Amino acid sequence: MKNQTKNRLSRQMDFLSEIEKLKTVYRQNGVVDGSRFENSAEHSWHAALYALILAEYAPDTAMDHCRTLELLLIHDLAEVYAGDTFLYDEAGKADAAIRESEAAIKLFGLLPDGQRERYLSLWREFEERATPEARFAACMDALQPVINHYLTGQPDKGPLLAVSRVRDKKRFVGEIAPELWTFTETILERCVEKGLYSPD
Amino acid sequence: MKNQTKNRLSRQMDFLSEIEKLKTVYRQNGVVDGSRFENSAEHSWHAALYALILAEYAPDTAMDHCRTLELLLIHDLAEVYAGDTFLYDEAGKADAAIRESEAAIKLFGLLPDGQRERYLSLWREFEERATPEARFAACMDALQPVINHYLTGQPDKGPLLAVSRVRDKKRFVGEIAPELWTFTETILERCVEKGLYSPD
Repeated sequence: MKNQTKNRLSRQMDFLSEIEKLKTVYRQNGVVDGSRFENSAEHSWHAALYALILAEYAPDTAMDHCRTLELLLIHDLAEVYAGDTFLYDEAGKADAAIRESEAAIKLFGLLPDGQRERYLSLWREFEERATPEARFAACMDALQPVINHYLTGQPDKGPLLAVSRVRDKKRFVGEIAPELWTFTETILERCVEKGLYSPD
Repeated sequence: MKNQTKNRLSRQMDFLSEIEKLKTVYRQNGVVDGSRFENSAEHSWHAALYALILAEYAPDTAMDHCRTLELLLIHDLAEVYAGDTFLYDEAGKADAAIRESEAAIKLFGLLPDGQRERYLSLWREFEERATPEARFAACMDALQPVINHYLTGQPDKGPLLAVSRVRDKKRFVGEIAPELWTFTETILERCVEKGLYSPD
């Protein structure tokens, strides 16, 4: 093995080792047996499965569905350093973009030339909803926690959220994938019935 | 929304809900903070990341890397019903193929027409190492636990494994991606130094 190759592969393995930590970044949602909170690695896996199975509801038939998978697999990686910020934590959200951007530069900086730029760029594409693929990926990222929340039936940490706040954060899905939004609205209503969100 | 669409989407959502359970199927490996075992959902996410970052080491330049991602995202789904069988559990492995095949038929049977056949077929493609994509995916599935084991430093449950047994199970990687196997062999040696496998 040439030294150059070795160095490149070592960098790639350093990156793959560092992202182990995403499995210990916990979100507000639970897992189905109620034993612990969901982490961002398994959430990313699940959101990618959503994209696979629900691809037919994407608005643009020319979309590159492989790119959507890539975006979802990497979309939470900055949390390795920045942690997860709850969608409804307005104070935390205020500086999350800066913290996460710095974290992404640090993390993707572990990769060798070419991959470093490519994956940082993909990460930003998701953050900025810059392409049809990123917008559809954002829908999957928004839907998965709602369905998970309904299934696991665990109230979020802290005071109950009003369903209107949830609806406001997720409503963009309706502009991109109307059928998925119609389905989600019925789930939100059932979450209210189960006492997981407070009614309007 | 037409009834037919509704029914199709409901089936897809039932499937996406059922696979929540993969997050509670635990493997023999740990997570980096030592707090719990790794589950098959986060393992699948990590193996897909391996495939993304290490794609250049695949032997066939005409390979469909998107298919490799799909294979890795779904490769463990039968465990939702069949549980995880440890690679070195020879008794469990003897009937695992039958149990997992029945589980896959049941699970993918939740999907609507077209998707049911497609994903069962993809799952079998991985099991049978039937294509270059499935063989490269199998390499990622074999490498990720070795690196994870080295990083987390937790001995497996039960008696220490001899490194020769691990090498025998993983040696096929060398025929598909020699550079990755060379790297892995150095990690196996370091695992022995750390007392995670017994020497030959």
